[in-house]
Amino acid sequence: MSDADAAVGPLREAVAVALDEDLGVLGDLTSQAIIPEAAIGTGHFVARQQGVLAGTQAVDEVYRQLDPAVTVTWRLQDGDPVAAGHELGRVFGGMRSILSGERTALNFLCHLAGVATLTRAFVQAAGGGVRVLDTRKTLPGLRALEKAAVRAGGGHNHRASLSDALLIKDNHLVALGIEKSVQAASDRWPGRTVEVECERPEQVAEAVEVGAGIVMLDNMTPAQVKKCVSLVRKSSRPGVLVEVSGRVTLETVAAYAAAGPDLISTSAITQSAPALDLGLDVEGEG
Amino acid sequence: MSDADAAVGPLREAVAVALDEDLGVLGDLTSQAIIPEAAIGTGHFVARQQGVLAGTQAVDEVYRQLDPAVTVTWRLQDGDPVAAGHELGRVFGGMRSILSGERTALNFLCHLAGVATLTRAFVQAAGGGVRVLDTRKTLPGLRALEKAAVRAGGGHNHRASLSDALLIKDNHLVALGIEKSVQAASDRWPGRTVEVECERPEQVAEAVEVGAGIVMLDNMTPAQVKKCVSLVRKSSRPGVLVEVSGRVTLETVAAYAAAGPDLISTSAITQSAPALDLGLDVEGEG
Amino acid sequence: MSDADAAVGPLREAVAVALDEDLGVLGDLTSQAIIPEAAIGTGHFVARQQGVLAGTQAVDEVYRQLDPAVTVTWRLQDGDPVAAGHELGRVFGGMRSILSGERTALNFLCHLAGVATLTRAFVQAAGGGVRVLDTRKTLPGLRALEKAAVRAGGGHNHRASLSDALLIKDNHLVALGIEKSVQAASDRWPGRTVEVECERPEQVAEAVEVGAGIVMLDNMTPAQVKKCVSLVRKSSRPGVLVEVSGRVTLETVAAYAAAGPDLISTSAITQSAPALDLGLDVEGEG
Amino acid sequence: MSDADAAVGPLREAVAVALDEDLGVLGDLTSQAIIPEAAIGTGHFVARQQGVLAGTQAVDEVYRQLDPAVTVTWRLQDGDPVAAGHELGRVFGGMRSILSGERTALNFLCHLAGVATLTRAFVQAAGGGVRVLDTRKTLPGLRALEKAAVRAGGGHNHRASLSDALLIKDNHLVALGIEKSVQAASDRWPGRTVEVECERPEQVAEAVEVGAGIVMLDNMTPAQVKKCVSLVRKSSRPGVLVEVSGRVTLETVAAYAAAGPDLISTSAITQSAPALDLGLDVEGEG
Amino acid sequence: MSDADAAVGPLREAVAVALDEDLGVLGDLTSQAIIPEAAIGTGHFVARQQGVLAGTQAVDEVYRQLDPAVTVTWRLQDGDPVAAGHELGRVFGGMRSILSGERTALNFLCHLAGVATLTRAFVQAAGGGVRVLDTRKTLPGLRALEKAAVRAGGGHNHRASLSDALLIKDNHLVALGIEKSVQAASDRWPGRTVEVECERPEQVAEAVEVGAGIVMLDNMTPAQVKKCVSLVRKSSRPGVLVEVSGRVTLETVAAYAAAGPDLISTSAITQSAPALDLGLDVEGEG
Amino acid sequence: MSDADAAVGPLREAVAVALDEDLGVLGDLTSQAIIPEAAIGTGHFVARQQGVLAGTQAVDEVYRQLDPAVTVTWRLQDGDPVAAGHELGRVFGGMRSILSGERTALNFLCHLAGVATLTRAFVQAAGGGVRVLDTRKTLPGLRALEKAAVRAGGGHNHRASLSDALLIKDNHLVALGIEKSVQAASDRWPGRTVEVECERPEQVAEAVEVGAGIVMLDNMTPAQVKKCVSLVRKSSRPGVLVEVSGRVTLETVAAYAAAGPDLISTSAITQSAPALDLGLDVEGEG
Repeated sequence: MSDADAAVGPLREAVAVALDEDLGVLGDLTSQAIIPEAAIGTGHFVARQQGVLAGTQAVDEVYRQLDPAVTVTWRLQDGDPVAAGHELGRVFGGMRSILSGERTALNFLCHLAGVATLTRAFVQAAGGGVRVLDTRKTLPGLRALEKAAVRAGGGHNHRASLSDALLIKDNHLVALGIEKSVQAASDRWPGRTVEVECERPEQVAEAVEVGAGIVMLDNMTPAQVKKCVSLVRKSSRPGVLVEVSGRVTLETVAAYAAAGPDLISTSAITQSAPALDLGLDVEGEG
Repeated sequence: MSDADAAVGPLREAVAVALDEDLGVLGDLTSQAIIPEAAIGTGHFVARQQGVLAGTQAVDEVYRQLDPAVTVTWRLQDGDPVAAGHELGRVFGGMRSILSGERTALNFLCHLAGVATLTRAFVQAAGGGVRVLDTRKTLPGLRALEKAAVRAGGGHNHRASLSDALLIKDNHLVALGIEKSVQAASDRWPGRTVEVECERPEQVAEAVEVGAGIVMLDNMTPAQVKKCVSLVRKSSRPGVLVEVSGRVTLETVAAYAAAGPDLISTSAITQSAPALDLGLDVEGEG
Repeated sequence: MSDADAAVGPLREAVAVALDEDLGVLGDLTSQAIIPEAAIGTGHFVARQQGVLAGTQAVDEVYRQLDPAVTVTWRLQDGDPVAAGHELGRVFGGMRSILSGERTALNFLCHLAGVATLTRAFVQAAGGGVRVLDTRKTLPGLRALEKAAVRAGGGHNHRASLSDALLIKDNHLVALGIEKSVQAASDRWPGRTVEVECERPEQVAEAVEVGAGIVMLDNMTPAQVKKCVSLVRKSSRPGVLVEVSGRVTLETVAAYAAAGPDLISTSAITQSAPALDLGLDVEGEG
Repeated sequence: MSDADAAVGPLREAVAVALDEDLGVLGDLTSQAIIPEAAIGTGHFVARQQGVLAGTQAVDEVYRQLDPAVTVTWRLQDGDPVAAGHELGRVFGGMRSILSGERTALNFLCHLAGVATLTRAFVQAAGGGVRVLDTRKTLPGLRALEKAAVRAGGGHNHRASLSDALLIKDNHLVALGIEKSVQAASDRWPGRTVEVECERPEQVAEAVEVGAGIVMLDNMTPAQVKKCVSLVRKSSRPGVLVEVSGRVTLETVAAYAAAGPDLISTSAITQSAPALDLGLDVEGEG
Repeated sequence: MSDADAAVGPLREAVAVALDEDLGVLGDLTSQAIIPEAAIGTGHFVARQQGVLAGTQAVDEVYRQLDPAVTVTWRLQDGDPVAAGHELGRVFGGMRSILSGERTALNFLCHLAGVATLTRAFVQAAGGGVRVLDTRKTLPGLRALEKAAVRAGGGHNHRASLSDALLIKDNHLVALGIEKSVQAASDRWPGRTVEVECERPEQVAEAVEVGAGIVMLDNMTPAQVKKCVSLVRKSSRPGVLVEVSGRVTLETVAAYAAAGPDLISTSAITQSAPALDLGLDVEGEG
Repeated sequence: MSDADAAVGPLREAVAVALDEDLGVLGDLTSQAIIPEAAIGTGHFVARQQGVLAGTQAVDEVYRQLDPAVTVTWRLQDGDPVAAGHELGRVFGGMRSILSGERTALNFLCHLAGVATLTRAFVQAAGGGVRVLDTRKTLPGLRALEKAAVRAGGGHNHRASLSDALLIKDNHLVALGIEKSVQAASDRWPGRTVEVECERPEQVAEAVEVGAGIVMLDNMTPAQVKKCVSLVRKSSRPGVLVEVSGRVTLETVAAYAAAGPDLISTSAITQSAPALDLGLDVEGEG
């Protein structure tokens, strides 16, 4: 299991659904009609654009489910940089199988490499002193795979689901206010970090005071962030993390990073990452 | 059933998987801890950006699966233009349910509206004489929903799967050449349109000659497209359609459209559409 | 992948469901009680009746899911003729596994070989100048496998689902009439063949005129078919196919074929094909 | 729950799979293109042939899953005789939904009514003194529904799976012989009826002697059956049932029944029942 | 297939669900962070308490689904006695995989060994003349595995589901009384043993008289049981079995057994069996 | 949504699987044979033993899936104490449906109420100053429901899966030691509490020093716990929680609680909770 592997359950389900939607009831009409049953070939996964590789595990699973006689081997692995023209890996076996799985395999690979590529761009733009995090703004059904691709790109994962960490937002605060909300959260789920979304410095101060483990600064300017960071660092509770969220772009991330937070989260890397242009060059046996 | 509805099976499965990945084993920790069990509220789906609405059916399904006591009503429907600040619809019911479903609902809505919005941009840039089509380059598990969003944006759907139409590409041609490939396809699957991917005018001529119903011009310049279109229109076989594919962008689509093809297909609208910025403003009962 | 293979998704699901319904909660009570755990044996799939083989892929999958240590080998393959007494293939391995999978394996094999056998009978009765097609009148859950068996029997597949081709029937015509319906269909789904069901020659003429790619002659006599075929062949639009449908039986198919259509479709081959009598002769290790 | 209802789990799964295979990724292309979104209509399920109704529960479930706004009502119920021209029931609602579900609904209805019709024919031919049973030779995935249809036709259900009753066949007997096999079965699964397949009168005598609850006479002539029945009736163990199996046809069933067995089982009623010709006549709102 | 194996369908589904609930979206956070990707190790399944082994098949399946490169080997098999300190088996492979599957594997193993252990305690306490049976009071989703564990412990399986045997209880008797109920059951499901739950000797007499194959004595004292057993043994219908049910505990089972019934059933062995204390001792490669 | 509700996905799946395993292919043989189709009745859920209610949501779901015409109403809710003889709630509707769902409904109810009951016993024995937590030692497939039942009983939930919190155990420590392990965990998953399992006071001191948020004291005596608690409380890092785990029983929990930890976790409440004795008393309509 590599650091960029997704959990097996979501991986298998996502691949099975994707194959079903592409193969339908009759399978690959064109290959059945034109490619001889016994034809053998090799497909080369090739980058047509610079970026970061991710999703190789999904390609393996596509061919494993489609035709176990097909073999997939990789020259590069998830997280490796790729340049236009690079061969990433190969698929070898029955030509019909290679072609029938091509689009499904590439749909995973191009999307997940796109996620890793954009993540790395954010990480590099942010510089070394801060961590870039994803969010729960992921594409439905692909969260486990996208979060693995974020790791491949050098990012870190924020909570994976509503079931795994406490994040108190404005909608929650309406009911009880910060102090009582943090207390209620700690009481109900002892031992879990409580994060509080803050829009103003006073909220930051209060959140730190009453026990938040992370304060999320929402839609602030870098200057405001800087002020809040300083406020947190001076508080009597050590170890509280500061997260910047909202309106962070490739252009602004360096400025936010310079303001000194621990974490910067962005939905762009999962929800709006353009596909990386990767292709499969196929050749038959001579 | 509206024109922009997805088939029920893929819709239900996609929503069930998305809820599972966001609710995990324990559900929404934060809402359980902070929001009173009996609290009732209203959430307003609001556009924070201009675009085209799509995905309302998925939001309905999210709340139907999560809590049938919650009601969702829409002021606008799929395909309608939205402007920043517009209210799109409302969700009313138990506050915990509204908040627990918020992210899953928005993940569908923002992605699918993003697809519809980019589709409409292509359609408008292309002008009226050509149809904009999607491809099979969709995000795994979301094909049925993305193709419905393309329709909402004014685009048309290319084939839905390998099982539903014949598209002969370079990898297939290696084996038999154009004439024999088209014949083999027609023989094996009589009555289905055969499309042939062409990279040179001679291929176009041959494809039309031997019975292709659509010729796909791959990676050509607008000038090359124009030449091929003229070639097809002058052929003895009426009704053959010309599709342009590859390298079509929002900037170049008008030039391609001016070259006179019937269809322009692009993977960008499904595979690389940025999420539309939509949110849910929640208010509790007074 | 052979021409008679079904897509992997439907195959695996159908086999898993079938094993579940036959093995229930406790598995094979009788074998557990009587057959020693370590007993090894060989089962011979034998034809007890003349026909055409199909469904071997399903048998492979039954034993693969039930017990990967069991091996299945075939002397004949899908589409081959079989005669009473012929051995078709063998299953070797643990006796309990062989017996526990016997009925599920045979249920697939006998039904699918029945489909292939009846298909071939239609194909032979029709003679060489016409293609025999299946329909969407298939047994629920078995469409992908039955359509593969039709191919094994020498038939061709009509559309696989509502999602993959346009067929305008009387119920659709009520709304718009032939011309507007064909136009609406072509507009909505450009590049797809539009088929129109016709009950009278005037409808045939109109359908061809307005762009139908296939005319389906429903419940006509061979004489009426002949007249319509001639009408289509004389039209200004070349390449329009004529399909005969409804009331075609093994007795009448030759007469219909003689009338000159391109395609004859029949639901009998999937919906009413009697099972082919095939059995498994089992012998234990000496 | 009626006597002819199938268990809900298998029913829901079979319907979901069937809808998925017919609606694919894009749904009903033709209805989307031609039928106005708001059109309302009524469909009349009509018999085009004489027979016995079954499968209404599956039709209800098809429309419940497809579109809960559609209502289905029945004039007749499972088990009722139908004659050509009879209206069986109605479906009312959105025209697109009615048409999109038509084929899936009819595929269940025609097959299951076909099973019920053939079952009733066997029951009537057999006369009153014997019960007609189905077998495990059912179509994969449809066992629960077919067995319910057998009940609708007046037949009875033999065991539903390998997990629910003991039936010792020739393959089992090889290992231990009748006496030890029956004993092993009773020991392992106390309280369950043990049935033994017999090919000769001596086996019948032994099976009854050693505790079989049912003897199955396999491939015997009516005269042989008569002799074995008499042998069983004269034995010292009262209540042992005699089942006739193998080679029973509509033509021979009366002769077998006259030989006095308790049960006659046949695979024909599930595995080889032709579809009953039923249709849906649709009319739009005026 | 061993006597203590569960049917493959329920086994695979139970393991897949269990892995999904333990691995969630991100998998094993701790192992990913701390264990090197390439680390190899061995885990030793060790008993920390005396009991009976069961559930090895589930452990195999956990690692097969999680990581096929991991191998599991057993020194003991289901049904074998284990003592504190005994090594039961080993798992070898990638350390991350071993640790990620540890809890899921142990959750099956400890529960199923707990079932087998308590079953054996009942069997031994009951002595040799009677069979100990389980009931349908099993933990949801685990019936097939628990019933296999009961067999591993030396017990026998009562019916597996409502679909597989007739058991007439007080709620059923209200409608028709014993005689008509037994007759209705035999008529509807010929050849299946009919069991009748009795609370008083008169009911026992009537049940035997009218054809019950098993009488279940519910909540009687050993003395009452003895009286009823004698009543059944003296009846004119041989072979009727007597089952004792309700309030049977490890303390009372011997007294009930001494009263002479054929079968004693208890829900305790599945519904209230404490987990057996088994652990996994892991060591890395040197 | 109540505090004791489980997430909908796991709930629906668990109920669907449980109904399938109890209804099999033929459904409830006995009720079909004996209970008239039209019979209506009421079932009263009644406690036969003192305890705490949990699992009502599962009962609702059982009847919702089985027969939506059946209504379930509750007099008490999850978390309420129940005494022998108390009516908990009612189910009203078709008698066949009530009886067909009875066992599945009770299997959930008795197990989950058993979990809640044992949890409350631990909570009460521990006294007020400490929280009682569950573990990941749950029954496969039932984790979400069992953790909800723990909340109903007044307990708290430890992590729900490997994917949601960091718990460094001895097996992990082998690789890196405490300091580097905690650092690696914090680096990889910033913002998540890191828990460290400690067997000796020195480990406790080191864990607190290097940033653990929780120290788990494994298999210590109350005296050892007291010493470690004091060590943690005196450390320079405030807010570190102490969890006691291993060998905690109803008898010893008070002694452990007196030693002053924040949290006491026990697997007994999920893995070894005896079913609570609850039943369904059914009466037909007069």
